[in-house]
Amino acid sequence: MRKLRVWAPNAKQVAIEIANRRIAMQSEGDNGWWWIETELATPGVDYAFVLNEGRPLPDPRSAWQPYGVHGVSRLIEHDSFPWSDKGWSAPPLSSAIIYELHVGTFTAEGTFEAAIERLPHLVELGVTHVELMPVAEFSGDRGWGYDGVDLYAPHHSYGGAEGLKRLVDACHQRGLAVILDVVYNHFGPAGNYLADFGPYQTNHYRTPWGDAVNFDGPDSCEVRRFLCDNALMWLRDYHIDGLRLDAIHAIVDMSAIHFLEQLAQEVTRLEASVGRRLVLIAESNLNDPRVVRSVDAGGFGLDAQWNDDFHHALHCILTGERVGYYADFGSVAQLAKALRNAYVYDGCYSQFRRRCHGRPPSGLSGHRFIGYAQTHDQIGNRAKGERTSMLMNLGSLKIAAALVMAAPFVPMLFQGEEWGASTPFMYFSGHPDQELGRAVSEGRRKEFASFGWPAEEVPDPQAIETFVRSKLDWTELSRQPHAELLQWHRALIRLRKANVELTDGRLDRVEVRWDERARWLSMKRGTIVLFANLAVEQQTIPLATARDYDTLLTSHSETRIATEGLQMPGQSVLIARVR
Amino acid sequence: MRKLRVWAPNAKQVAIEIANRRIAMQSEGDNGWWWIETELATPGVDYAFVLNEGRPLPDPRSAWQPYGVHGVSRLIEHDSFPWSDKGWSAPPLSSAIIYELHVGTFTAEGTFEAAIERLPHLVELGVTHVELMPVAEFSGDRGWGYDGVDLYAPHHSYGGAEGLKRLVDACHQRGLAVILDVVYNHFGPAGNYLADFGPYQTNHYRTPWGDAVNFDGPDSCEVRRFLCDNALMWLRDYHIDGLRLDAIHAIVDMSAIHFLEQLAQEVTRLEASVGRRLVLIAESNLNDPRVVRSVDAGGFGLDAQWNDDFHHALHCILTGERVGYYADFGSVAQLAKALRNAYVYDGCYSQFRRRCHGRPPSGLSGHRFIGYAQTHDQIGNRAKGERTSMLMNLGSLKIAAALVMAAPFVPMLFQGEEWGASTPFMYFSGHPDQELGRAVSEGRRKEFASFGWPAEEVPDPQAIETFVRSKLDWTELSRQPHAELLQWHRALIRLRKANVELTDGRLDRVEVRWDERARWLSMKRGTIVLFANLAVEQQTIPLATARDYDTLLTSHSETRIATEGLQMPGQSVLIARVR
Repeated sequence: MRKLRVWAPNAKQVAIEIANRRIAMQSEGDNGWWWIETELATPGVDYAFVLNEGRPLPDPRSAWQPYGVHGVSRLIEHDSFPWSDKGWSAPPLSSAIIYELHVGTFTAEGTFEAAIERLPHLVELGVTHVELMPVAEFSGDRGWGYDGVDLYAPHHSYGGAEGLKRLVDACHQRGLAVILDVVYNHFGPAGNYLADFGPYQTNHYRTPWGDAVNFDGPDSCEVRRFLCDNALMWLRDYHIDGLRLDAIHAIVDMSAIHFLEQLAQEVTRLEASVGRRLVLIAESNLNDPRVVRSVDAGGFGLDAQWNDDFHHALHCILTGERVGYYADFGSVAQLAKALRNAYVYDGCYSQFRRRCHGRPPSGLSGHRFIGYAQTHDQIGNRAKGERTSMLMNLGSLKIAAALVMAAPFVPMLFQGEEWGASTPFMYFSGHPDQELGRAVSEGRRKEFASFGWPAEEVPDPQAIETFVRSKLDWTELSRQPHAELLQWHRALIRLRKANVELTDGRLDRVEVRWDERARWLSMKRGTIVLFANLAVEQQTIPLATARDYDTLLTSHSETRIATEGLQMPGQSVLIARVR
Repeated sequence: MRKLRVWAPNAKQVAIEIANRRIAMQSEGDNGWWWIETELATPGVDYAFVLNEGRPLPDPRSAWQPYGVHGVSRLIEHDSFPWSDKGWSAPPLSSAIIYELHVGTFTAEGTFEAAIERLPHLVELGVTHVELMPVAEFSGDRGWGYDGVDLYAPHHSYGGAEGLKRLVDACHQRGLAVILDVVYNHFGPAGNYLADFGPYQTNHYRTPWGDAVNFDGPDSCEVRRFLCDNALMWLRDYHIDGLRLDAIHAIVDMSAIHFLEQLAQEVTRLEASVGRRLVLIAESNLNDPRVVRSVDAGGFGLDAQWNDDFHHALHCILTGERVGYYADFGSVAQLAKALRNAYVYDGCYSQFRRRCHGRPPSGLSGHRFIGYAQTHDQIGNRAKGERTSMLMNLGSLKIAAALVMAAPFVPMLFQGEEWGASTPFMYFSGHPDQELGRAVSEGRRKEFASFGWPAEEVPDPQAIETFVRSKLDWTELSRQPHAELLQWHRALIRLRKANVELTDGRLDRVEVRWDERARWLSMKRGTIVLFANLAVEQQTIPLATARDYDTLLTSHSETRIATEGLQMPGQSVLIARVR
């Protein structure tokens, strides 16, 4: 006998279809929930809910959608998995090296199972946290994952619940923590039956993807419950160590207790209960320190947020790009500001946003910010999904990596970045619904047409080859220049781990010097100094004090420390210790 | 020579029509502003702006609309007013007795000038702060004022800029501070030409009154500037002592620095500059203490907020009403909670809102909350605009007044409440646009039809008699029971002012006892105790300790303090001092 429940506050009657039978469910009263207890509800059995004698619908909390978003749900038993990670607890974010990966393109097979085989590579690289792009069931067999509709079900094509658990267990066995990307700001355009069940969405606010999630309207308690329970499920039943919360700037909530604060409090409570470290990381473009401030300081209490300003400042300096939101960046001073202040836009006017943006993150630790030179978005939201390795030369790639690994933030890499993968990471989808598919393809072409891209040059997201071409090519690791770049990353990570000065989160201790015109920057962290010659030509960087330096790492062996300064080749970087 | 400026970022060309001439204005460059310097711009001259050779439009920052919202603007000179309030500074909110009034119905004439004649009544009553319902130019000659469109122009039918200044000056001369109600959450439906000038509004969020104000979208800096400058203008040029910010829950702003925080900071800056105390009071249904918390505690830094929960708890106990939002109230325990906690809904589930609502206002002073038994809204949003004097008997009216004046909040009265005015305060408007007028009348009928009101019983807001009937009848003050109620209010205010224990804002010092079934409540504040018998029948209220009491004020002389308890007639109140 197992009890099944579903929230369907607007339904007049609810039935379950299970094992070829249809059985009426009982109302719990005025709370909108319906229940049934039946012996048919055994692990592995397929079922669906029927509201008001309509068509069968998947369970909003389905843990397995073997036939995709439109099909029936399948029951699973969480407790039966043979976990082998007893005693595991993730290392703190302050010591983390995060590695973002997309299950479908990380390996040729594109499954959780196949990803396990590549974990030794991550361990050898020095990674501490694997961050999975969203795995919740979305329409079709391939996609980035931000179109999820069955938020409780690991995608069938990745290997479902069992596969995800095996991957997490394997990570923990190898000392790797797992962060999962979850999307709580909207639901995907296909297979979203939530509106049939209840007021999960509201037209009171708008998101770039349509109606917003109902965080503060009538019956929003249950919607918040739905999402909090989802978060708790991943952390508890899948032993996930943390969540990356997608685009929280699209979560509009006027409640006195913001959804994210509630979520953070509930995760903290679970942390105490399971005895493992759990973290919440926000993707936020708000530049609002409230997101990561503690609750007693009026914040939401999240652990960290992605630092796009640092990325943009770094990217623009090294590529010279100024299109779209990059229009707001491009000076060395901005990169310097990001290194000391996390936000470049901390209240000043943004030309791109046409308004003042952000506020100073006064007093916050650098550990509240994830620092990176690439992410799935920064690569994949380009017309052709170009990685920095297609936009920069080896010198600049090494500068970027050195700045990420020596910065006061928590470093993150995107799959393949460590070897400058030659494969792109393009925007791809696999919507079986032809009309939706065409709309997605067309929307993508139109988006880039506005930047001047000819339609034929923009890869079709729906084409299978757009997906296939985005898969990593693991054969190129040993070839140059990939092998050299991989060694560079390994050395940088080793250096970061070996020197407490580099993992020091105190932003006000970071000393930055730069010359806008000459285009160089130095960053001193305790006794360790990074010098970057951002110019194409070689130059002599004046030293702050006439001290002796021991080189720790250098991208170009011809760098020379002389009394008049540091002679550096164009686009080179050196990390040294002041004696 | 005077320079005139206007923000019209989307205009290709802008001209001014002034003194029968049309002159092209100059663009200031890429900031969206246009300017002209002309000798024609003298005080008293009429002018209008012409965008892209369209029809003449009033100045968004017009200080005077002599012909209403659709007419031309008229220049005024703020500096020429002969102020006589040198050295004036408003008393602190902690000591305040606020008196909300509507200029159009406060007197028969309905003008600022006429209001001056009634100030002695307010002084005698013990009022410290006069709060004016919105005066900014709205469509037509009569209305509540929440449909303002020319936010910088005191309404022409009230007496314009000159009239308002004379009223404020007269108040200050009599020791009365002036608070002005301002509406920053939407613009009125008629005469709103702002959209012609720039992106003042956004369809990104919705309000009950249509498109929201653009607080966080592109070009929102200038929109925020427009509203902040408006606030600063009232406080600086009209010597207003504080603003009441209408319905801030309809101000949706995802910026890292919320509009209200910016406003509070700018007002604080002005306060230092003018050397007068300035306050900001929010109408907020968010039950979010962030609104009145200091900025360093993560708040917006407003001075106080209206406390609807206290009103609702009090109103429901004394009237037995349970319709609409009153469904959430009705227990003595809720009234007791409001007296100690300000919010009744501090995170618990609200049946009316169908969601959890609010958060505890931990550590906040009672001075952060305005307490009242009536407001323009609570009266006028009823079908027939009934005051409590039409809903309660004299005993209950006295209980309400006593609780308001002895509560730890800042007390507020609505015009005529002090004598239980027999005139209603109905919803009225005077839109000259017939279609809009019909829509308003129809909307009102429909709204109350949903509560079961027959159409013919709902006064037509557009009918002139609805306005006229809402005017105070100053002849009734000396008649009973009005005179008795007026004396009661005067005595209560005297008592509050004479006893520091009653103006103590520390909520955790308030001791409340009550009996839900017997329907009595007592509130102890230092040595002063208020006993209220809320039941219809007389009863004996048990005393907490066998102490001696000196009666300070009682609504019924037959109240008797005996050893077994306090014998109180039905619906009576007594305030005593513990010896």
